Amino acid sequence: MEGAQAVREALGADVPVHELFVTPDATERHPDLVDAARTAGVRVVPVTDRAAASLSDTVTPQGLVAVCDLLDVPVETALAARPALVAVLVGVSDPGNAGTVIRVADAAGAGAVLLAGDTVDPHNGKAVRASTGSVFHLPLARDRAAGAVLDACRSAGLTLLAADGRGELDLHGPRAADVLRSPTAWIFGGEAHGLPPELAAAADHRVRVPIHGRAESLNLATAAAVCLYASAQHRSR
Amino acid sequence: MEGAQAVREALGADVPVHELFVTPDATERHPDLVDAARTAGVRVVPVTDRAAASLSDTVTPQGLVAVCDLLDVPVETALAARPALVAVLVGVSDPGNAGTVIRVADAAGAGAVLLAGDTVDPHNGKAVRASTGSVFHLPLARDRAAGAVLDACRSAGLTLLAADGRGELDLHGPRAADVLRSPTAWIFGGEAHGLPPELAAAADHRVRVPIHGRAESLNLATAAAVCLYASAQHRSR
Repeated sequence: MEGAQAVREALGADVPVHELFVTPDATERHPDLVDAARTAGVRVVPVTDRAAASLSDTVTPQGLVAVCDLLDVPVETALAARPALVAVLVGVSDPGNAGTVIRVADAAGAGAVLLAGDTVDPHNGKAVRASTGSVFHLPLARDRAAGAVLDACRSAGLTLLAADGRGELDLHGPRAADVLRSPTAWIFGGEAHGLPPELAAAADHRVRVPIHGRAESLNLATAAAVCLYASAQHRSR
Repeated sequence: MEGAQAVREALGADVPVHELFVTPDATERHPDLVDAARTAGVRVVPVTDRAAASLSDTVTPQGLVAVCDLLDVPVETALAARPALVAVLVGVSDPGNAGTVIRVADAAGAGAVLLAGDTVDPHNGKAVRASTGSVFHLPLARDRAAGAVLDACRSAGLTLLAADGRGELDLHGPRAADVLRSPTAWIFGGEAHGLPPELAAAADHRVRVPIHGRAESLNLATAAAVCLYASAQHRSR
């Protein structure tokens, strides 16, 4: 984990942090973080700017890199608490998009994010940064077998809604309102090709965000935001 | 305008296209586009791959670059048709974010997007690409004087709603429902610092997207998607 925000979240989360590499500059800028790491029993290792840069995948390294355990858990563990709202990403390859959806799922009150099929690793630095800490806030699970992930959601009592621009159910239509009151797993496909047809067909409903203007579609993150918040809105009523 | 999608939108839109530079490869891949340009009286100029690359700001140029007039109009012109939904961006510096908000505003049925203050130029190549054609779909206006833009919105009969994470009105709360039925200009601030306090204060209401989980906030594009679609939902009732 890289940078002050991610390191702070890691230290405050349940995930074991093993080592913190920190430059003299960063030690001066973030004495609280270095103290917190020491108090938590984390080994704090002073490093040069050059060493910190070689650990970093950003253009302007912040001089703080923590080594911690992987965050993801098995799908069944992520669903064990019977969350009423879950986001499933299938074949999402852009790490910024994946991180942004994890952030908006967190904001909308989702209880887990499941990364299925050829979806990018949520530990990717760009995904972690785009999530602005949310990778630490809710259970993440990864499984290449997307069909098995959907089965696990169904077994956990979730209604499966596939976000699909050509779906039969209008998100804001009267028929969707009833559906949105159930515990829901939203399934989002990748940027380039959307959801594979067999997975869209396996969902209980295919739901479209209505397009009122002349745009052809929404991008993944904005569509996910509108869908997940539609669920949040119905749940809070 | 660069790439097949943007060139196709430009040829189909109201904006005058003057020249189309095209490589032999692109001519073979998109004969329909080259024909449409010729039919529309556009001067078609064959160029080498190297020349096309020097005209491009992408890593993998598509070999199609059109020269057309600027798209933006004065603020008063953009509001002349009395749109019932408008997005105002203030100090948005990232072109990808600006383009994404233009796309979601289009999808939600907005009648104009106004770019105020230090907001990025919507003609920026990244903004055009992120908008996936939406820069051609609705009037765009630019004005550095953000206060004057808000005044123009008010004069056009729009209620001014500032998107503000600490706003007094919950977007999904009962009090917001009445507000969202009015013709609305949504005002969105930049990624780094949000909306300047004096502009937030000048709005009729400051509206927050409720955060149900532990995320601190939403990013600009997802917040704009949720806000603009909340308006679309109330308008379509």
